[in-house]
Amino acid sequence: MPGTSKYAKDTLVIKNELLMPNDTNMFNNLMGGKMMYWMDIAAGISAQKLSNSLAVTASVDNISFKHPIEISSVVTLRAQVTRSFKTSMEVYIEVTAENIPKKTKQMTNSAFFTFVAVDKNGNPMPVPELIPETEREKELYEGALRRRQLRLIFAGRLKPKDANELKAIFEQEI
Amino acid sequence: MPGTSKYAKDTLVIKNELLMPNDTNMFNNLMGGKMMYWMDIAAGISAQKLSNSLAVTASVDNISFKHPIEISSVVTLRAQVTRSFKTSMEVYIEVTAENIPKKTKQMTNSAFFTFVAVDKNGNPMPVPELIPETEREKELYEGALRRRQLRLIFAGRLKPKDANELKAIFEQEI
Amino acid sequence: MPGTSKYAKDTLVIKNELLMPNDTNMFNNLMGGKMMYWMDIAAGISAQKLSNSLAVTASVDNISFKHPIEISSVVTLRAQVTRSFKTSMEVYIEVTAENIPKKTKQMTNSAFFTFVAVDKNGNPMPVPELIPETEREKELYEGALRRRQLRLIFAGRLKPKDANELKAIFEQEI
Amino acid sequence: MPGTSKYAKDTLVIKNELLMPNDTNMFNNLMGGKMMYWMDIAAGISAQKLSNSLAVTASVDNISFKHPIEISSVVTLRAQVTRSFKTSMEVYIEVTAENIPKKTKQMTNSAFFTFVAVDKNGNPMPVPELIPETEREKELYEGALRRRQLRLIFAGRLKPKDANELKAIFEQEI
Amino acid sequence: MPGTSKYAKDTLVIKNELLMPNDTNMFNNLMGGKMMYWMDIAAGISAQKLSNSLAVTASVDNISFKHPIEISSVVTLRAQVTRSFKTSMEVYIEVTAENIPKKTKQMTNSAFFTFVAVDKNGNPMPVPELIPETEREKELYEGALRRRQLRLIFAGRLKPKDANELKAIFEQEI
Amino acid sequence: MPGTSKYAKDTLVIKNELLMPNDTNMFNNLMGGKMMYWMDIAAGISAQKLSNSLAVTASVDNISFKHPIEISSVVTLRAQVTRSFKTSMEVYIEVTAENIPKKTKQMTNSAFFTFVAVDKNGNPMPVPELIPETEREKELYEGALRRRQLRLIFAGRLKPKDANELKAIFEQEI
Repeated sequence: MPGTSKYAKDTLVIKNELLMPNDTNMFNNLMGGKMMYWMDIAAGISAQKLSNSLAVTASVDNISFKHPIEISSVVTLRAQVTRSFKTSMEVYIEVTAENIPKKTKQMTNSAFFTFVAVDKNGNPMPVPELIPETEREKELYEGALRRRQLRLIFAGRLKPKDANELKAIFEQEI
Repeated sequence: MPGTSKYAKDTLVIKNELLMPNDTNMFNNLMGGKMMYWMDIAAGISAQKLSNSLAVTASVDNISFKHPIEISSVVTLRAQVTRSFKTSMEVYIEVTAENIPKKTKQMTNSAFFTFVAVDKNGNPMPVPELIPETEREKELYEGALRRRQLRLIFAGRLKPKDANELKAIFEQEI
Repeated sequence: MPGTSKYAKDTLVIKNELLMPNDTNMFNNLMGGKMMYWMDIAAGISAQKLSNSLAVTASVDNISFKHPIEISSVVTLRAQVTRSFKTSMEVYIEVTAENIPKKTKQMTNSAFFTFVAVDKNGNPMPVPELIPETEREKELYEGALRRRQLRLIFAGRLKPKDANELKAIFEQEI
Repeated sequence: MPGTSKYAKDTLVIKNELLMPNDTNMFNNLMGGKMMYWMDIAAGISAQKLSNSLAVTASVDNISFKHPIEISSVVTLRAQVTRSFKTSMEVYIEVTAENIPKKTKQMTNSAFFTFVAVDKNGNPMPVPELIPETEREKELYEGALRRRQLRLIFAGRLKPKDANELKAIFEQEI
Repeated sequence: MPGTSKYAKDTLVIKNELLMPNDTNMFNNLMGGKMMYWMDIAAGISAQKLSNSLAVTASVDNISFKHPIEISSVVTLRAQVTRSFKTSMEVYIEVTAENIPKKTKQMTNSAFFTFVAVDKNGNPMPVPELIPETEREKELYEGALRRRQLRLIFAGRLKPKDANELKAIFEQEI
Repeated sequence: MPGTSKYAKDTLVIKNELLMPNDTNMFNNLMGGKMMYWMDIAAGISAQKLSNSLAVTASVDNISFKHPIEISSVVTLRAQVTRSFKTSMEVYIEVTAENIPKKTKQMTNSAFFTFVAVDKNGNPMPVPELIPETEREKELYEGALRRRQLRLIFAGRLKPKDANELKAIFEQEI
């Protein structure tokens, strides 16, 4: 599909940050709000890479903060589009924190952001199709439909009883 | 319940911001990431007010960004705890944007954040009970259980088929 | 006076801030300069609320910093217009600092800012009248004239001997 | 008085800033709050130069903002101690704004800040005497007593009728 | 050389930034100073990756700014260690700017930073050897000696006439 | 030479900064990147003073960071144009750090920046001649030619063997 599609890997955006005092809370750990601020920037660039246009944040899915990240850590964000819809794109972000002198490194967070491609007047515009290649990319691609139903329910634009794909998971294991 | 409970209204935190150039994207509208940064601060203070302790962000539920907020707008965040669990609290944040000279004002976003109360060593500690008073507070208090089940599912700590309260909504209207 | 007046309470603006490392001096206490920066924003929004227009800072009265505010404190600014003149407004700001885990809370500062209402070309424009209701609001309303004389003297636009209201207080107790 | 005194000129601190987007209001002019933030830093360094110790902001006198300063201007702050008291110092700050390509330059603001010299535990400590040399320095030195009386009145620590030096000016021209 | 050496590619650090208003000059182009600020962070993380320790900036070589980068561009910094010396490392940084909606992309800057590995007391410590693999990595590895001589001359620690490798290039083409 | 030339001293720009937490690395010392950010601003204002126009950064020469500057220090940057060429100017910046309570003060860094004068459309424009007066100013003026040759070599616009002035120094002491 030349011209109207892109490989998932071509939307990869990496953003490394060094954790500074003002990014931290009273325990010298990264504040959740600052993490989301960085996620939004990395994911927004990834969305631009797919759409070849500007892109604005439409929504953010549930994010959890289980692992505190201490000051002076290197925070690495990796954002990649998982699937495109008509004018919107879902972006997956994975965050790893590494304290190099202490030789600790772990995946700390992940999140799904949705962006809408917009032209220079801010009007939504069509987005190229995304082609997943690896197993992981295909898995994220498949799950995108289900997550989209959940978002539409949250936004009040879909009735729970009509979310067939989502309903199914309440009868089985994930 | 003196000493171990607080009224919902006593956790209200208001934060007014004036939208500055660096808070905006290429359309001179507020960036989603900056909005979440402010939400995290307002909600964190609200959680502190209930717990009488420090509080760290545990998770953020789905947030959608439907209404762009233009530069020079006044952004008003109102955060209030909806319900406390053993060591955690759910906080509801509502955001209103107002462009005073243009006489426009609308509710632009809402979000649920979860915080964990921690002592000075960062260990979780018990949280006072929250007492809802108004209709709206009671509604948010009731819904907190259902949202908590959804979070536990997202975190892989609850199987969808065991989330009885949540399952119910897939058979009926919300 | 419908249309041309507003109640003092309708101009109330609350701004909560969490004290971060870069806001502090070498004692980990809030810097005076940062406090004034926040005051200016809160007071400016309050002035906009009365004038229904943009508003620019015209002057700041004497501010004193008696109580250091330590890092991680919650700083609460409350700004409210006290009285309007032809095209200008006096705003009173009161600041409270609270260290929630330490259970300390005190009023730390107060200040009077003056703003001028301006249209979109930056020209001064008339301001609605302000109606004080509570005892405190009336007291602030009354004192506004005296403070205005002092400002005019400082600005070299009024001779001390002509400041009748102000002169009076030098013969009696405040 | 070697060792215990310093010349006024030895406390001069110059701070040049380039006016950036986030320092400005909706008219692309410098915000009053940001100006005061810079003043506080420049004046604090000047106070340190006299006291040979850390110094914390004690108060700020009336400041007026008559001349808007547009984006891209060079803002030059000049701070110099005018007089020392037991443990405190008054600092005078003068601000000039210059738009070099437009060949405009004017003095835009002036202010008096008061700082207290503190040791490393934050306790007030004695300050060296200041020796004024030029006409302007002597004038500022003389006026410092009168301004101090006014501050004590504002702080409720001096009754207006006891402020002899200040009272005098209400009978004559300034 | 297990344990005491690393491949050049293992020190690669990518940092994507979105150009915001406060990063720009009066032409809405990236300020040189902000670019160097980002370079220092990316290069410092790269140095940490080789040394497994903290690392502090020792010097920066000549940087030129030929291509203005306009607001809203995506700025991509790629930093990688070129060679290690006893306790220091040279890092090469390459910057690309892309305006996605305008479909423009170009390499805008490159720079060499030198970092010193330090232990937790700030004392220099030995650095693992770097193994270049690709042609480009080998070229950068070779050139590192010559650039080091130039730095030592600039620092007054080597006499120009003793810089044999460097002298050679003045008789031939680069 | 009225109108077309200026004295070196008329381009002096002083910028004092107080070292804040977010300006520092994990040792509470100034980050190299932040220092370069400040240098760029001070030097850019100095260039504007000579050219009477806007000026954009063209290049930065080798900078070394030998002396760590600890938090709460006063950092003083002094920038002055050393020589002008057709449309460009070389600016010399000297940085001094002072920890006043500890009574330590030392020159920590120096750098040469080159700026190009530009009109409001961003096109290069002629720069007035610079007249050095003191011994130091004359020395910097003379060395400017040699440093310019080195920059042209780095930029690939001059062959080393043609850099006569520069070659000379490889046969003698600096």
